[in-house]
Amino acid sequence: MEKLSLIKIGGNIIDDAGALEKFIRDFAAYPGKKILVHGGGKLATAMSAKLGIETKMYEGRRITDADTLQVVTMVYAGWISKTITARLQANNCPAIGLCGADAALVKTVRRPNAPVDFGFVGDGTAEDVNTSVLRTLLDNGLVPVIAPVTADANGQLLNTNADTMAALIASALSPYYEVSLLFCFEKNGVLLDPENEASLIPALSKSEFESLKKNGIVSGGMVPKLSNAFEACESGVSEVHIMHASRLSRKGTDGGTKIYLS
Amino acid sequence: MEKLSLIKIGGNIIDDAGALEKFIRDFAAYPGKKILVHGGGKLATAMSAKLGIETKMYEGRRITDADTLQVVTMVYAGWISKTITARLQANNCPAIGLCGADAALVKTVRRPNAPVDFGFVGDGTAEDVNTSVLRTLLDNGLVPVIAPVTADANGQLLNTNADTMAALIASALSPYYEVSLLFCFEKNGVLLDPENEASLIPALSKSEFESLKKNGIVSGGMVPKLSNAFEACESGVSEVHIMHASRLSRKGTDGGTKIYLS
Repeated sequence: MEKLSLIKIGGNIIDDAGALEKFIRDFAAYPGKKILVHGGGKLATAMSAKLGIETKMYEGRRITDADTLQVVTMVYAGWISKTITARLQANNCPAIGLCGADAALVKTVRRPNAPVDFGFVGDGTAEDVNTSVLRTLLDNGLVPVIAPVTADANGQLLNTNADTMAALIASALSPYYEVSLLFCFEKNGVLLDPENEASLIPALSKSEFESLKKNGIVSGGMVPKLSNAFEACESGVSEVHIMHASRLSRKGTDGGTKIYLS
Repeated sequence: MEKLSLIKIGGNIIDDAGALEKFIRDFAAYPGKKILVHGGGKLATAMSAKLGIETKMYEGRRITDADTLQVVTMVYAGWISKTITARLQANNCPAIGLCGADAALVKTVRRPNAPVDFGFVGDGTAEDVNTSVLRTLLDNGLVPVIAPVTADANGQLLNTNADTMAALIASALSPYYEVSLLFCFEKNGVLLDPENEASLIPALSKSEFESLKKNGIVSGGMVPKLSNAFEACESGVSEVHIMHASRLSRKGTDGGTKIYLS
């Protein structure tokens, strides 16, 4: 099977102009078929503040009211998507900036409003990914750049977690490609001590993850990221790494934390 | 040759929720291959005001400084693009929201800064349209929804006139399709008296346009719109109409002003 790299880039890299430009050059030069999924959290928070919209979080996750939905759609699917796409094009990478609503790439349903009402937030499964359109784009030499905004069957836009989008798309495409899923962010990978970049865990099995989670060694935003990573492994994705964005130039297989089932 | 309809929808329809929803239903039901190009001026002005960015115009055209470029990219290529795309999807129209930067659909160059510096504004020609990608999307059953933001060869995003984008794309695709270009907006068409919707000019030749322009009967934003329309006619577009958005449900050929060369 042909190889496909699905690369997720985190918000802290997007917020750092120098790191983003390096990442864009590395991604453009990365060999083979590829898809980029991006977040962009801090810029949405800053834009909300400028517009006088209060940012509400619950356990690290954004509560998306109607005004916040407009901001995240503008920032993620507008400014960040088109900025990255235009810079990739300038680096000879035929990028096409999309969100989950485009060509019904990722259909979601609004999250139930209990026990916590997250507002306009959508969740999907790998079955909700339009693999046919993604394969058409890839087979025509295009590089999809995907923002974490989706829509439900009624055309309601919904904010969707970017790590989850990346994992869903990777899983959905694994019957058609040998998929590598690389979560790139501002840390070296999964760390035993979040303050010490040298404490990298080079490989992590699901049972090790469960025990690290139980002991509180892995916590915060790393828990859902790893849950997404293991779900992708279980759904047929060939390899999953959690790694520093700067390592992408080394082709992504000799750094970070390799995720494996057992 | 197969028919293709390129439909431009103006900002005043986008600003009117009821008119937009009717337009979306009519566009979704419109037969055959089709492309939508949208503007969105007033919402960008309102968003700029909320962000404390002064909107500067010169002879009715927006001067796009760096902050304004961010706003138009967020509003046109983010909020408006994805709102329309999601609503079209809900009406069984397989829309894909793009801007000129995506897949290098429309490459532009920044307008010279003399005699007037319009800032981050880009102009292109029909030769700068990536017809190959548009044909691939159309041949795969997708309906491109295109926002008037483009990029230059260096990856600099640029604000681009939506009427011009529609005319360029229509011209560029005319070797491949029998193209109808329909400029849909909030008026019945070209009017002898802008205040009287009954004063519709049902057909307008280029020489008639020149004389109406000289006499000041056609003025303001209608002049560049008609210049774009005649350029499209001259470049091989089969038919060009300027018409009320509400007439789209009647298939667009029995209303508005028909543009012809001679």
